[in-house]
Amino acid sequence: MDERDESARRGFLRRSLALSGAGLITSSDVPAALADALPADTARPAWMRTPGAAFTNYGQPSAQERSVLRWISANRAVAGNGVSWTPLHDLEGTITPSGLHFERHHNGVPQIPIDQHRLLIHGLTRRALTFSIVDLARYPLRSQALFIECGGNSNAGWHRLPQQTRAGFLHGLASCSEWAGVPLGPLLDEAGVDPSASWLVAEGADAAAVQVSLPLAKARNDCMLALYQNGERIRPENGYPLRLIVPGWEGVLNVKWLRRLEVADQPVMARNETARYTELLPSGKARMFTFVMDAKSVITTPSPGHRLDAKGVYEIRGLAWSGRGRIRAVEVSTDGGAHWATARLQEPVLPFAFTRFRMAWQWPGAPTVLKSRAIDESGYVQPERSVLIAERGRNGYFHYNAIVCWQVDEDGEVTHVYS
Amino acid sequence: MDERDESARRGFLRRSLALSGAGLITSSDVPAALADALPADTARPAWMRTPGAAFTNYGQPSAQERSVLRWISANRAVAGNGVSWTPLHDLEGTITPSGLHFERHHNGVPQIPIDQHRLLIHGLTRRALTFSIVDLARYPLRSQALFIECGGNSNAGWHRLPQQTRAGFLHGLASCSEWAGVPLGPLLDEAGVDPSASWLVAEGADAAAVQVSLPLAKARNDCMLALYQNGERIRPENGYPLRLIVPGWEGVLNVKWLRRLEVADQPVMARNETARYTELLPSGKARMFTFVMDAKSVITTPSPGHRLDAKGVYEIRGLAWSGRGRIRAVEVSTDGGAHWATARLQEPVLPFAFTRFRMAWQWPGAPTVLKSRAIDESGYVQPERSVLIAERGRNGYFHYNAIVCWQVDEDGEVTHVYS
Repeated sequence: MDERDESARRGFLRRSLALSGAGLITSSDVPAALADALPADTARPAWMRTPGAAFTNYGQPSAQERSVLRWISANRAVAGNGVSWTPLHDLEGTITPSGLHFERHHNGVPQIPIDQHRLLIHGLTRRALTFSIVDLARYPLRSQALFIECGGNSNAGWHRLPQQTRAGFLHGLASCSEWAGVPLGPLLDEAGVDPSASWLVAEGADAAAVQVSLPLAKARNDCMLALYQNGERIRPENGYPLRLIVPGWEGVLNVKWLRRLEVADQPVMARNETARYTELLPSGKARMFTFVMDAKSVITTPSPGHRLDAKGVYEIRGLAWSGRGRIRAVEVSTDGGAHWATARLQEPVLPFAFTRFRMAWQWPGAPTVLKSRAIDESGYVQPERSVLIAERGRNGYFHYNAIVCWQVDEDGEVTHVYS
Repeated sequence: MDERDESARRGFLRRSLALSGAGLITSSDVPAALADALPADTARPAWMRTPGAAFTNYGQPSAQERSVLRWISANRAVAGNGVSWTPLHDLEGTITPSGLHFERHHNGVPQIPIDQHRLLIHGLTRRALTFSIVDLARYPLRSQALFIECGGNSNAGWHRLPQQTRAGFLHGLASCSEWAGVPLGPLLDEAGVDPSASWLVAEGADAAAVQVSLPLAKARNDCMLALYQNGERIRPENGYPLRLIVPGWEGVLNVKWLRRLEVADQPVMARNETARYTELLPSGKARMFTFVMDAKSVITTPSPGHRLDAKGVYEIRGLAWSGRGRIRAVEVSTDGGAHWATARLQEPVLPFAFTRFRMAWQWPGAPTVLKSRAIDESGYVQPERSVLIAERGRNGYFHYNAIVCWQVDEDGEVTHVYS
């Protein structure tokens, strides 16, 4: 319909509404005639002059957003071994789109026919149980927004020099999805757990047959066998068709392509809890089974790769999360840590989920350092880097959660610094 | 690593842990030796015998989920005019994956270069303001899980005979995303609204130049200019790069590809609020500007296309939502409405968002009818179909929100019925 037709139609409408009895409108708030002097329309751009693209059965991001991607850092020596990072610096809100959820694979993404997949629950149980995906979907379900964070996330922080890359490529082995699935506790009860048992060993159906151990108490308390991620079936790279979800604990425990849960009286001492995901402390002892992900926060805007155009008001935005439950507060410093102010937290603040924080900031156009620190409901406070290193030494690779510092130069460029 | 290597490695580990001083583990809960008698592993399926697929920069659903799609119902006479439906019957939780968010287009999806897009705020204001997307992204942001529902959703319910199709193809012109963007109120304040103004006219940058009017009070209260959907930039078919979000109100008001907001003292009387999105009542008067989406619920499992295998326990699952805020309760009847029980609501129950409800049900293997009814925090109760029709007559097309009835036959087949 062109402008003239539309104007003629409106004129007809005005007359109809004024004269017709049948067409009377009921609300007295609604005038029966239009103003004659609607402002002239602004010039219509090219994309309004022809019909747009067709409907699609499954939508994709705009081609203009192709730079918003997972950054792959793979091990050339082992097929399908490595990670890909969520571009946290490009995202907003708290949900990570499933296509951008971080990956950590040990030997690639298995292609599992959903009707052939089975989960075995066995070990120190009265009976062994085997479930198909259809069987599992019959049980009562639960859904919950939960972050998953790799124990090795942010590990560049252990380096002597601050790595210069995007915020998501430093801290984006963490993502947040709405997971839906079967609470694990009732299935363990159905199998009948022996009183002597205290551990649960989980195994994935990938070529690496990833195994991990977790305390049975956690498994019974809040773990979930997830079938869905952000509404639809789990993506292949996130465990299709079944993933163990262990709220707030190390990513590696959230076993993908879950095929086996073995009730045991001790951990399995698998590669991923002995050679890896352990840390040699200054005392000479090694930390093992460091399950809980300590509270962390990171300013995603502005962050390296962003540039402030001119002095003025900006909104500092970031994400915080804690393996101990809810974020209680996020404090932000815009002067390198001399003063701290409390950021706004986006409601609802949910346990074990990403929490978005935001704070207005007047940039005076001078160099400064931005920091954020998360405080969770247990009272845990995200530490300064010097404190973390004093406690853990310099052999760290896992569980780096120190305060992140972004330096803003006088020209508005943002770089990663230690301070 | 094959089984033998792994076993040899474990033996080495046992010895190391028992003998080494440096490698001592700190927790007394953790045994220094492995049990020798881990149960024999179950046979490894084919997909565990070779490395899996590689990392990807942007993930996609499993090829096995290709049937989970938006069902397109397009108007052959007008390019890009029609709808596509969210397959609610295949989904779980509350978030709709962006690729499956319903579409309603009037003339296709415009391809808008993000750096060329502008929003004009003008009309009865002290000054006209023009914003680029970069300008808007400087303002304080907000994020919120919100449903959007087309005013024409569920309109097959007005038909004389119950339409036989999937639940999502009857009721899936409704989807729920986490939207993030700029609260509209402060921008209107910045433009300086004239005291005589009471309406806001919104216009999209598609070839149809869709226009709608909404009361200024709503715009100031809780509307948002969304830049992000489920964490990433809005998908093209959902308004890339800018969408007006009007929580709880008719989908058509949530103008996609938003280019113009005109402050006015009366509605624009555009096609979509006169010829469409209005309803002739039995009294001969027409309902117009029926903005609020009344409370609705639908059982998504089981629903037509599903089949109960045998008598036994099933979980009834569904979605409820209300344009008046939070869902207070969902009641479910498994005997055609004779008795009602209260379903569990998945926490958190958020205003203007999908709420997932679930209820265990023992199917005795006999025919019956399942119903659900939503009650929202205003006290509004989703009506029976007969009540809705008595009130609105038989000329309805929009705002159908009656209780949905699924009949389960003795063989477990599910069909759509009126009752």
